[in-house]
Parts: sequence; C-alpha cells; structure tokens
Amino acid sequence: MDEELLDRYADLIVGFGANVQPDQVVAVEASVEAAPLVRKLARRAYERGARYVDIVYFDPQVKRIRIESAPDDSLEWVPPWLGRRMLDLGELDAARIVLTPFVPPGLLEGLDAVRAGRDQLPTVRELFKVLDDRSVAWTVSPFPTEAWASRVFPELGPAQAVDALWRDLEHVCRLDEPDPVDAWKQRIDEIWQNASRLDELDLDALRFVGPGTDLTVGLLPSSRFAKEGGGATTRTGIHHVPNLPTEELFTTPDPDRTEGVVTSTKPLDVGGSLVTGLRVRFDRGRAVEIDADSNVETLRRRCATDEGAARLGEVALVDGESRIGRLGRTFFNTLLDENSASHIALGDAYSSPIADPADLPRINESEIHVDFMIGSDEVTVSGVTHDGGEVPVLVGGAWQI
Amino acid sequence: MDEELLDRYADLIVGFGANVQPDQVVAVEASVEAAPLVRKLARRAYERGARYVDIVYFDPQVKRIRIESAPDDSLEWVPPWLGRRMLDLGELDAARIVLTPFVPPGLLEGLDAVRAGRDQLPTVRELFKVLDDRSVAWTVSPFPTEAWASRVFPELGPAQAVDALWRDLEHVCRLDEPDPVDAWKQRIDEIWQNASRLDELDLDALRFVGPGTDLTVGLLPSSRFAKEGGGATTRTGIHHVPNLPTEELFTTPDPDRTEGVVTSTKPLDVGGSLVTGLRVRFDRGRAVEIDADSNVETLRRRCATDEGAARLGEVALVDGESRIGRLGRTFFNTLLDENSASHIALGDAYSSPIADPADLPRINESEIHVDFMIGSDEVTVSGVTHDGGEVPVLVGGAWQI
Repeated sequence: MDEELLDRYADLIVGFGANVQPDQVVAVEASVEAAPLVRKLARRAYERGARYVDIVYFDPQVKRIRIESAPDDSLEWVPPWLGRRMLDLGELDAARIVLTPFVPPGLLEGLDAVRAGRDQLPTVRELFKVLDDRSVAWTVSPFPTEAWASRVFPELGPAQAVDALWRDLEHVCRLDEPDPVDAWKQRIDEIWQNASRLDELDLDALRFVGPGTDLTVGLLPSSRFAKEGGGATTRTGIHHVPNLPTEELFTTPDPDRTEGVVTSTKPLDVGGSLVTGLRVRFDRGRAVEIDADSNVETLRRRCATDEGAARLGEVALVDGESRIGRLGRTFFNTLLDENSASHIALGDAYSSPIADPADLPRINESEIHVDFMIGSDEVTVSGVTHDGGEVPVLVGGAWQI
Repeated sequence: MDEELLDRYADLIVGFGANVQPDQVVAVEASVEAAPLVRKLARRAYERGARYVDIVYFDPQVKRIRIESAPDDSLEWVPPWLGRRMLDLGELDAARIVLTPFVPPGLLEGLDAVRAGRDQLPTVRELFKVLDDRSVAWTVSPFPTEAWASRVFPELGPAQAVDALWRDLEHVCRLDEPDPVDAWKQRIDEIWQNASRLDELDLDALRFVGPGTDLTVGLLPSSRFAKEGGGATTRTGIHHVPNLPTEELFTTPDPDRTEGVVTSTKPLDVGGSLVTGLRVRFDRGRAVEIDADSNVETLRRRCATDEGAARLGEVALVDGESRIGRLGRTFFNTLLDENSASHIALGDAYSSPIADPADLPRINESEIHVDFMIGSDEVTVSGVTHDGGEVPVLVGGAWQI
C-alpha cells in the first residue's frame, strides 16, 4: 500500500471531509480490509485534538454467513446498542467517517433475496434521526477492497484490480492535485454556483426525458439546491463534506408529485445484490411498478419496508464535468455511481435543502434511502416552471442555465 | 491457515466453551487479525440457532496511536455505548467469546507508562458487574497473531512463528486429541476432584514458599475451590468453560489477610507493557510495596485505580500436569501463563467460589483484575489449618492431598 497516498487521503478526509474539531468524538466505520487507512485516520484525528476515535470494523463475510445460516425469524433483529451508539454520536455532536463499501457488490449473490432483505445492517434506523438533526459532521469516502476492485476490473487479478481502482480513486478524489483541499473548494464552489442559478429559476418540477425515461419530479415550494451545494453545516456550525468525492447538486422533492416512467442508466447495488435494467413507474409520487432484469425482488422488498420507501426523498443533478462520469466506468458503488450521473433516491429525505419550515412536514420519511442513476448524455433535463413552461437545464451533460 | 484446524477449534469454542444455545445472542470480541476464526465462530453459532452474532474487532494499533497522540486529558474517556453493550449482553443472558490477545505483548513498549495506564480499553468496568451476575456464558481462547507469535518465538520469522504458536495451541487446547470435548471433560473432572479434596481440608489460608517468596493468602470461611473447578454455570443454568485451555483451580481469598512477600515466576503483560522481575510485599491484605525490573510504573498505576486494586481477588493452583506448564514456555499472555503455574490476582473477585452469601460483602471489588504467576516446581504450597498447623498441598508440582 502506498503510505504517502494513504497519508494524503487521511488528511483530506479528516481535515476537510469531516473537519474534525478539538475535543470532538470521531466515529470511523469501515470494512476490516480498510485497516491501513483507518489507522491513518485515527492518528490524524487525534493529532487534531479528537477526544476519542471509535473504530467499528464491519465484516461483510459475517453478514453473508448470517443470511446463509441464521434462523429465519432472527434476521430482522438489531442489537439495541448499535442504535444507541448512533444516537449518542448525535448527542455528542460527533464526527463520523464512513469508508464505503461496507458490503462489496455481489457479496450476497446466490442467497435468498427475501432473507437478504431482512438483514439491513450495518444501517440502523437511528441514522436518519441523526441526519435530520444535523448533529453529526459526517463524510463518506471510498476504500478499494479486493472484492470490490475485482468486480470493477474483472479482467485483472485481485492485486492488479486493487491498484487500478486506487488509480481511479486518486483521480476522482483529486488526490492527484497539488493541493486536494483547494481543488475541492473550487469544485464545490462551481457546484454551488450552478445550484444557485437553478434556484433562481424557481422551478415547480424537473423533467427527465431519454431512452425509456419520461419522468417529472415535482418540487416543494421551498426546495432549494444551493443550501447544500457540495458541503453541509451541522447544527453547531461545523462545515463538512458529506461525500468525497462529490459532484452532485441535489434537493428534496415533493413525495406526492412524481409521475411517469424512468429507466436506470447504471446497475444498482442494493446491500450486496446487483439490480440491473431497473424500470420504475410512478403514479402520484408512488413507485407502483418496479421491474428489473436481475434481483428485482431485493429492491421490491426494500420498497415495502414502510409507507415512505416507495416515494422519492432526493433528486440530484450531475453535470458532464464530473471526474467520475468522465471515466465512463460503472463502479457498482452508490457513492461513486451517484456522483457520475443525475439520480433520484427512494426513501428518507434530507430536511436541510428545505428553506421554509412550513414545508418540512411534507418531506418523505422512511427507514431506507436507495439512490439510483437515471442520467446520461442521452437524457435531457428540463425545468418546469409554475406556469407550466419548460426551460432546458442539462443537455448532453452541459448546463443550459 | 489450516481450515480444518480452524473448524475443529470453532466447534470446541462455540459448542463447549460458550455452549451456545438456540435464540441466544452471541458476542465475539477479537483482534482484526483473527477474522478467519471469527467467521468460523459466527457460522457455528448461527448453525446452533443463535439469534445474532455481534462481532467487535479490536485494533491494537489504534490503541497505540491513541496513547501516542490523543490529548492528555482525554485518555480515560470511555464511550458510553461500550459499557451499555456489556450490560445489554447481561440482560440478554448472552454468550460471549473472547479471542486473546486483544493487545499483543510489548505493543505499548516505548510509550509513556502514565499515559498508557490511563487507557484501559477494551476493558470496561461494566464487565465486572456482568461477571458477578453470572448472566453471560463467557469463554476466552487464544488466537496466534503475528505480533504475539513473534514475541514467543523471536528466533523465527513472522510466518514461522505463527505456525509454531499454532502447534503449541493445538496441543494445549487438546485439538490434537481425537475428541477434544471429551479430553476436556476428563481434564476438568480431574481438576474438580483435586479441588474437592482441597475443600475437604477446610483451610484457613494457603502458604507459598520458594525463592524470593514467603506469602500467606488468607481465605474466607466459605471460600471453595470445587464450586468453579474448570467449568462454570450461568444464572440461567448454562454450563460454560470460561477459559479454554483451563488448568487451574481457584477461589476467592479474604482481601484483608494476605501477608508477606512474593516474587513473580513469569513476566507479566499489563495491557501491552511487559513487567519483569515483579516483587510485591503485602501487609494486612494490601500490596504496600511493588517493585519490578521493568515497567513497574504501569502496574503501580493500575493498582492505584481504586481501593480494591491493591488487594487480592483470586488465588489459583496449577499442578505439574498442565500441558501449558509442561511446555516450559513463557507465552507473555495471561490466559496461557496463568494456566501454566499457580497465581494470584490483584483486583476484582469472583463471587461464584463463595459458598455462604454472608461472606459475599467481604470479597474484593475493583475495576481491575490482574493475574500474575507465583508458582513453579521450586515453590511449595501448603495449607494452613484453623488451628495454625500446616499440611503440604503442592510439592514439585505434584498434589500431596
């Protein structure tokens, strides 16, 4: 492993992504394989004065073993201490660093989809309360595990695949820039400028038109893109960057006003099961038909979790300048793939993009949040104004605003 | 890694050590390196019907990083969720499997002993409540990590050292027997027979005499050896084996009546710091002088944790038939070394060896429990009767009772 690259990466994640503060408690959650980077993160966090760094190593192989072997009626059981830890992190106004993926793409292949859908760990429902409270300064970044890299580069041996994925990650995380933090500040400012221009249009809806797609996503009166353009701020005023890399601008839509059909432009990994060829029809905000070429049952079960699980909690636009999109690769990983193309998410909504508290009771609530990619150079995005007119927003990946 | 050996080991630990029951929650705590065995343990536990297997991977390198880099006033801070998890395991009458060592011998060498002493994780104080309640069916077994093996076999390369340590462990864990469970049942029965004979003597104290040692350890009126001879039983009646391997018979002494001087017969690892040449003088139960050739400050700080930390919570006898003792090796690991020779422990006492509840308020309480070895073939153990007479107990490693 390239120690110097790990050091630069840890600097970026701790110093800019999570923006760790003196006396702050810092949670780090990662796959066992990510230990070399986790140790660098711990050292950087302590050097910045962290009170305590709480490492949780997740073992995806034990998740697979559970789904294979545990008694049927036990699979939904969640130990109470996992949820309370998450709430405690909120009460402590902690930082939280996640290295993705916990579960490599395809890990759950060959398993019973119904059983797989019952075990939603390591996600705990308390996470969504903490996100809504904006108490935790969180950041998610990728770490190339062998199983993941072998999926992205099936033609290479495991070690070569990991090397190739590191090279991609170094580029898309802008670690190949002389000053990665400065490079990110510039890119995030660009995203914010575009988001502000979009907000000025005061749109009523976004419309996506392309092969297999004609979807209109209604917005709430105070849905804003620029409030969260690339960065975020906790309730105590700590700036953090939830996703590194980040290339998207997003908002919270009206959960009752999505209409039409949409075809996913990338395969989607749902907790270890790969959903390909996904097609969804929405009626008055609800996903009423869900079809796919593989693993459709996993997603259908996920969408039956609760009332909000079949409605939208997010709509996001990604332009053609995205370093991830320009690589033209499918990473089988939501963090990277969602920052390569415009996307929507089923399930829980963020409250932060909503400008008027009067709109907050209307945003979507759920125990799930599943992003899927619907954008490409062939998909045109336009804005629907309150008088019913349409203005071009993204054509061939280029901003029209 | 020898998959077949790992399978047999997992069978022994899950089926006999922890004796996992249907619908039981099972905690597994281990070093990151132990993942191959941890996964076997998880599968065996689920196959026996466990409701959930909670894996906690401890990273000793992050512990070292904390002691090196964290702010001075933060080192005693313990996240509340760790203690609550332990209490929850008790409320759930869970099983708990620990793979030792969490912290390899010598890990903390070169660090400030005062700072090292402040970070007692992964031990949490709530553990002692759970032990006292006899709510959790716990078992501790060794896993040969590279850092540990390299300390035991410094003349070998890391991979060879791990192989050599595996061979020792296979032998002392009786995995080289055709039926390891049956072999353990026999050995535990032998220990129980010896403990019962010792109880029949109705002793007032044990006396250890050898090079640098003349120590009398007073017993409580109802201190018994046979109640916990090799095995244990939870409050709900689950038999489990707290230590595998186990070669000791032990009881809870009177914390006010230890007198004399004792010289340790093996080096002692205290949370990663090696204490050699340890000599302790006791006066009316209290360790009033603690000296050593190395790292004495680490132990002195540990013994200043609370009032009970300088008094005895355990006295244990190990005979010359111990497979560990017969190897004649120092393992720099308490589980193995304490089962190679007679020993005493500073700190918290077990309530289970006490026959009369009236004696329970007198047993020692502390947040620490530090075993150290005081037996060898050169140390004679005799029993002191209530009329002040002495009867031989162990001479040259052989029982005299």
